[in-house]
Amino acid sequence: MPSESPAADPLASMELDLPVVLLSHRGPVSFDRDPETGERTASRGAGGLVTALSGLAAHLDEAVWVCVASGGEDAEVARESVGAPVHVGLDPEPRLLAEGADEPGRRLSLRLVEVAPGVHDPFYGVIANPLLWFVQHRLYNLSLSPSLGREERTAFEDGYVVANELAAEAVVEQVQKVGGRAVVLLHDYHFYLVGDIVRQRCPDALVSHFVHIPWPGPDGWRVLPPDMRDRLLTGLLGCDVVAFHTRADARAFLLCCQEILQLPVDMRLLAVSVAGRTVRVRVYPISIDIPALEATAHTDASDEHLVALDHFLGEGQLVLRVDRTDPSKNIVRGFQAFGLMLDEHPELQSRVVFLALLQPSRQDVQEYTDYLAAIGSAASSVNARHGTGTWQPIDVRFASDMALATAAYRRCDVLVVNAVADGMNLVAKEAVVLNERDMVLALSEATGAHDELGRFAVTLHPFDVAQQADALHEALTMPPQLRRDRREHAAMIVHRNDVERWLSAQLVDLATLAD
Amino acid sequence: MPSESPAADPLASMELDLPVVLLSHRGPVSFDRDPETGERTASRGAGGLVTALSGLAAHLDEAVWVCVASGGEDAEVARESVGAPVHVGLDPEPRLLAEGADEPGRRLSLRLVEVAPGVHDPFYGVIANPLLWFVQHRLYNLSLSPSLGREERTAFEDGYVVANELAAEAVVEQVQKVGGRAVVLLHDYHFYLVGDIVRQRCPDALVSHFVHIPWPGPDGWRVLPPDMRDRLLTGLLGCDVVAFHTRADARAFLLCCQEILQLPVDMRLLAVSVAGRTVRVRVYPISIDIPALEATAHTDASDEHLVALDHFLGEGQLVLRVDRTDPSKNIVRGFQAFGLMLDEHPELQSRVVFLALLQPSRQDVQEYTDYLAAIGSAASSVNARHGTGTWQPIDVRFASDMALATAAYRRCDVLVVNAVADGMNLVAKEAVVLNERDMVLALSEATGAHDELGRFAVTLHPFDVAQQADALHEALTMPPQLRRDRREHAAMIVHRNDVERWLSAQLVDLATLAD
Repeated sequence: MPSESPAADPLASMELDLPVVLLSHRGPVSFDRDPETGERTASRGAGGLVTALSGLAAHLDEAVWVCVASGGEDAEVARESVGAPVHVGLDPEPRLLAEGADEPGRRLSLRLVEVAPGVHDPFYGVIANPLLWFVQHRLYNLSLSPSLGREERTAFEDGYVVANELAAEAVVEQVQKVGGRAVVLLHDYHFYLVGDIVRQRCPDALVSHFVHIPWPGPDGWRVLPPDMRDRLLTGLLGCDVVAFHTRADARAFLLCCQEILQLPVDMRLLAVSVAGRTVRVRVYPISIDIPALEATAHTDASDEHLVALDHFLGEGQLVLRVDRTDPSKNIVRGFQAFGLMLDEHPELQSRVVFLALLQPSRQDVQEYTDYLAAIGSAASSVNARHGTGTWQPIDVRFASDMALATAAYRRCDVLVVNAVADGMNLVAKEAVVLNERDMVLALSEATGAHDELGRFAVTLHPFDVAQQADALHEALTMPPQLRRDRREHAAMIVHRNDVERWLSAQLVDLATLAD
Repeated sequence: MPSESPAADPLASMELDLPVVLLSHRGPVSFDRDPETGERTASRGAGGLVTALSGLAAHLDEAVWVCVASGGEDAEVARESVGAPVHVGLDPEPRLLAEGADEPGRRLSLRLVEVAPGVHDPFYGVIANPLLWFVQHRLYNLSLSPSLGREERTAFEDGYVVANELAAEAVVEQVQKVGGRAVVLLHDYHFYLVGDIVRQRCPDALVSHFVHIPWPGPDGWRVLPPDMRDRLLTGLLGCDVVAFHTRADARAFLLCCQEILQLPVDMRLLAVSVAGRTVRVRVYPISIDIPALEATAHTDASDEHLVALDHFLGEGQLVLRVDRTDPSKNIVRGFQAFGLMLDEHPELQSRVVFLALLQPSRQDVQEYTDYLAAIGSAASSVNARHGTGTWQPIDVRFASDMALATAAYRRCDVLVVNAVADGMNLVAKEAVVLNERDMVLALSEATGAHDELGRFAVTLHPFDVAQQADALHEALTMPPQLRRDRREHAAMIVHRNDVERWLSAQLVDLATLAD
């Protein structure tokens, strides 16, 4: 959570004097019912984006956060409130507040949008994930997939479009309630069509859309048929600002406007003209909430994991990765590279362990189950080639255990992030801040984090296993002073541009536009 | 072969007064030995590019065609000639001419470059095909492939680079023999490094490189590690002109120069500045040799196939495709779309056949054998669902039989070209010219041919099976007058821009640069 010092308060560093309406797919709190007592319960939403936005929303008195009701009890809350926001307290534990309640701690207004399963399933399970995710991470084997049939076309029209209209309707209502003039902050690939609807219905609103995942160039978007790709782009161009984590993504977006929609773009000023309006394209690299991360890392559970890791590793070096088992994460090639390094450097036998903390992801999607199998296969191949009775070079643990992850961050000698494509990658930033052994960051050139941290990392080329093997060896044998300098510089960069700065930079820029 | 009328002679329409040195991987003639008599034999090279260039070279007295010796006897000819060109007659049948022989018919000078198998295998079998082919057609499943290991890195350095140096050395020698001032026409993805070498060694030469396969944007090239992608681009930028079949490819090349090499480009004038020089990017859509095609189509063999097809089809409609079994050709989705159309239009049962004339391709490459299997599987699935004792809706014939292909071109009602990516696609142009039933061209937006013929075709979106099914139905039910108008217009376009015009346009432009 953001620190409470006034200087770090995003509101203190900006001139923006407008109410804020946020939209994201998942929200800061979700509701359930205790199966035993039958009472309503509330839990905090997960993920870096939700954490970051919670910090913002809690600081803004007039902010309303619109998100999709994610389960039956969320929908029940939505129905009870009849389209009005509900009030939620965040501290110490999330809970629904009574109307007019005056309780201490951070609070925010939450507008839950009910999206019927018949709409949400195709919206989320067919279009947003996996279609847009795969298109934007360029993960398709284009000779065979995607293969868009009637189901996908229907899922777009009756799922994605309808869900966007429902979300837009809720946003519009919230903007109209404050007189039509508000800052609207839309988030991510679930809602590309919302911006244009909001602008048309609320011409005085200031609308920004933040895209958190990689933005491919025109080739990538041409995988979608013209009506889909044109509508998604046009939806985004309804905003005043379209924002990305990296300059490369911002430029790719402009190239799409230029090549697909034939719009005039200014690559230097990062702007595109559409129907007499200027849409600004901006770059704000997202970051982490350092105090919250440090609180998680310095718990008894994390300390216990650290002792266990130390015992397990002894004098050995630890290569670490922490990822969802997403095909974009490039886990298979990472294991292949580690295996190649061991082939070529027998002196490392029994002296290094590659610990992979992997969170199984989207196992209802074929590509993900196939990828999980490929991960197991690649790890076994290396272990069978090099393992001994006392040493298995690759240690895969399927888990989502933040205490273990933070302990491993503290203990590791090399952190591997070799993603094929990644909007930012916060694991790199978390590890750099928490590490206690001057670890070397081995970082893919295809991550957003590489823009900020690449100078202090060993760069990985995601498709080049031989280069990754060389880079891992370089990282494991880097002189101590160089490791220390680089790790400290990288940590300084992350401290300097933390998540509050990410938020305040956007609000300051929007204030300029509002003038 | 080009017509002999003076007006159509590319030399007659241009001012270029310089000797020409051509480079392509395969040449117009290759040599072998008769296993019985032991005598040397010669045969004509295959493929549209070789046919087109043969026409050019035979018209230019001082042209020398450099190509790679493609077999043992080619290498023997190369050795006998000790680095000098040999003279080859093309009419009526290709043959080696004695030094000073004065024989009638078209002749050309051929310089065969010997490339040892230890160089050629990695150059061609690891880098050019499949790596560059897959990168440029964007066919990789990026989550797992390519996976560049030591073998691929070595294949690049000791195969591709060395083969390019050998070819460049031969080109340089030929240019130096004519005093250093010559037009150098380099061809295709085998030789991206040659242009820069030739420019440095022969600063007075005018160097052009024609890329015949699709050019992806920056994302696509970033699949290759920086040293490879930068060297390939820099090699091309050694030329005065880099030429493509389409404006989209030309623009994608400029975007790569801009985004990957950070060079200033002019998207309107299609030019890029590099180290004080201006490199022009040009668009010349390649075409077919119409008289040669018509000669092939009006043979007894073709007529016999036509009779057999008529008998086989009766009153039924014929949907046709003619392709190599390359994953870029999108054969699987084509069958799926045809099957979906039959699902949704039972009135077409027994009234239409999809004939696929497929030439098995590169079966030593895993992706190609997998793709061949997927083709069989997709066809069987449709036939099992819809076939009867007297009608199998999809008829796959693995063959490379030009007489059958031309008969099918003449008879078909719809020609399907739904490629995922295709530099030009000459099948579309051949069929449009030869067809005798006012066929409808169903043409992918991702082919070069779509630029010229898309207005007279039903456009296919390559990843959208549902749209392809609708488009096939539209094609099969199009009113006769509209079919006729469109086919005639398309044929007129092809007649107007035939392969001679493709050649002469390039030479005229180069003449301007030479002034």
